[in-house]
Amino acid sequence: MEIIKSLTVPNDRKILLIVLDGLGGLPKDGKTELETARTPNLDNLTKRSTLGLTIPVSYGITPGSVPGHLALFGYDPIKYPVGRGVIEALGVGLSIHPEDLCIRGNFATIKNGIIIDRRAGRIPTEENRRLCELLQSNIRRISNTKIIIHPSEGHRFAIVMRGQGLSPEISESDPLRNGEAPREIKPLKDQAKRTAEIVRELEERALELLRTEKRANYILLRGYSKFPSLEPMSTRYRIDPACIAIYPCYRGIGKLVGMEILQANTWEEEIEALKSSFNDFDFFYLHFKETDTKGEDGDFEGKVELIEKFDRLLEEILKIKFNVIAIGSDHSTPALLKSHSWHPSPFLLYSEYVRSDGIEKFGERSCRKGGLGVFPAIQVMPLLLAHSLKLKKFGA
Amino acid sequence: MEIIKSLTVPNDRKILLIVLDGLGGLPKDGKTELETARTPNLDNLTKRSTLGLTIPVSYGITPGSVPGHLALFGYDPIKYPVGRGVIEALGVGLSIHPEDLCIRGNFATIKNGIIIDRRAGRIPTEENRRLCELLQSNIRRISNTKIIIHPSEGHRFAIVMRGQGLSPEISESDPLRNGEAPREIKPLKDQAKRTAEIVRELEERALELLRTEKRANYILLRGYSKFPSLEPMSTRYRIDPACIAIYPCYRGIGKLVGMEILQANTWEEEIEALKSSFNDFDFFYLHFKETDTKGEDGDFEGKVELIEKFDRLLEEILKIKFNVIAIGSDHSTPALLKSHSWHPSPFLLYSEYVRSDGIEKFGERSCRKGGLGVFPAIQVMPLLLAHSLKLKKFGA
Repeated sequence: MEIIKSLTVPNDRKILLIVLDGLGGLPKDGKTELETARTPNLDNLTKRSTLGLTIPVSYGITPGSVPGHLALFGYDPIKYPVGRGVIEALGVGLSIHPEDLCIRGNFATIKNGIIIDRRAGRIPTEENRRLCELLQSNIRRISNTKIIIHPSEGHRFAIVMRGQGLSPEISESDPLRNGEAPREIKPLKDQAKRTAEIVRELEERALELLRTEKRANYILLRGYSKFPSLEPMSTRYRIDPACIAIYPCYRGIGKLVGMEILQANTWEEEIEALKSSFNDFDFFYLHFKETDTKGEDGDFEGKVELIEKFDRLLEEILKIKFNVIAIGSDHSTPALLKSHSWHPSPFLLYSEYVRSDGIEKFGERSCRKGGLGVFPAIQVMPLLLAHSLKLKKFGA
Repeated sequence: MEIIKSLTVPNDRKILLIVLDGLGGLPKDGKTELETARTPNLDNLTKRSTLGLTIPVSYGITPGSVPGHLALFGYDPIKYPVGRGVIEALGVGLSIHPEDLCIRGNFATIKNGIIIDRRAGRIPTEENRRLCELLQSNIRRISNTKIIIHPSEGHRFAIVMRGQGLSPEISESDPLRNGEAPREIKPLKDQAKRTAEIVRELEERALELLRTEKRANYILLRGYSKFPSLEPMSTRYRIDPACIAIYPCYRGIGKLVGMEILQANTWEEEIEALKSSFNDFDFFYLHFKETDTKGEDGDFEGKVELIEKFDRLLEEILKIKFNVIAIGSDHSTPALLKSHSWHPSPFLLYSEYVRSDGIEKFGERSCRKGGLGVFPAIQVMPLLLAHSLKLKKFGA
């Protein structure tokens, strides 16, 4: 990637990277979700494109959304692991600064010093909100460190600590099973002493506030992490990148690689945002989440329908004159598995400078026959830059 | 591989890795050995599988059996080089402990202090056995080190030295050409001084015993090596692995990656062992040697016939309900070359979670069209684990 950086030359050409989350699938009655969907606009683009299959992280590895996206943006997901606390904070829509320490919290039930329910009876999200408000309104700052507490789903919440010199090298209080005492939070390295003190004070004050609660009378903390310091895409690739995504996690990832975040709440609004900001950026990451959700639900037909819905919207997208269009995914989410999977993701690349494969239909098996072959997702960015003539010659 | 290890989750799903040694070939009259063979059972499985070509070590590199197998088992053969002494000892069926020093020996003919035949006139194996028995019965132990001497083919034999602090860092006595004096065995590093003394004493005592021999009146020693310390597959992948192989070398490799070795002396017995131990393990390495032997002999038709024999046995194998079946090879052995070769090996992967390629025939050129692409053999294990759902998600 250092070589890619040394070759970048900015120009006015516009790149669109469309991520259909969890697009790749597995066959049911011989065809995958994508192969089953009727996609005339996609097929039309396919004929003029070159295809391939992207391996998100490595052979056999099922990636989470964050590593899957980091790879697509050209950042090695193994070199930049992202901790649980960061994921939780991104997921609830908190913005994270490079120095922030992120923590994943659980409400729990304690009795006579023993954790009897690590999930506090899976309290409803409503109760979670009330409790987080109680904590946040009473705990705003500890020893020059700003404390941000935000509810997540069920019994889970996120904490972002904003201050100087915070370290993730402290031990977790969560014993990870019921019937045990919570663990003492201790520094694992000398430079984490002050952080451990702050987190212990946070814990004490929270427990005092929760003392009279029936179920959620304890908090368990784990997943201490900072977001890996990533060179922004603007300096790395000399592009102006924009992120169009509805879900907080994806907006968070976009922010952390230096994208400008555009507002949208529906797929249609995402396309409006793309149109209206076309002149302001030269790289657009356009994220559609629900293909993944349907896969996670095991809803084969639902995923097919969403792919078909995307196909109708694609007609609108193609009216905007991008020089380079890529359609791919952060990982596969086959309805058959009801989860993310390790299978390579179908990938399409259109530009006036591709050797089009002449393939008639966009699908997992047809992508296998494409000119890009089976290749690592981390090579997507170099390909997009090259096809928009943003990379000069290497060597003489 | 550290990441793979961190993601493993044990379960009851059963994996079968079939290695047809030296399977890959080169065309004669347009078709390779595998493409020529009539393989109805294999073709039937092929239609429901995904295919690819594995590169054993790297482009253009012809592997020996040991590196070829280490790669299939997920151990980088470049990181774990295995010396000649170890190969010889494995080949004759000696068991090797991690601290053992292995040596490859040649019987040779010396006259007036000059080696006149490094191979002692290629003495018959029978004579080799008699000489090794003579040496072994007189030399059992030198300075607390146990000495194991075992005949190999022709003029070659293996020595395993079992003791504390043995080092392979000593010089070889073999001058590697006739007409020169044998070299003195010297330590190459300080910590090898004692080893050099022991080996020199072994040499002296052997020469005294061989003094009256006409041809084999000298021994040349080389290929000092220890087996690289390999983390067992059971801890690396959290599986219970079994090895079903007839030839000592392959049983030896299996043993050194921590497999349980099952007894078999014919292909049919191998399949019986597979059946009878199905409930005791969740990973089976099933090795068929003779496809390689026929390739080495340059016997194209013989190799075709053995592939067809395997196909008939495959019907029996498929009656056992494995969740994941892979069929591949440690390297190619084209009859045209009469030797191992660098060509990628055909590879088939069956599970209920593959995107089957719908290819009709298992062959080198058809595998090139498969969904797995051309990929490093070291990625076979991650793929097998993933398809048996033994790897959890990476990142969130």
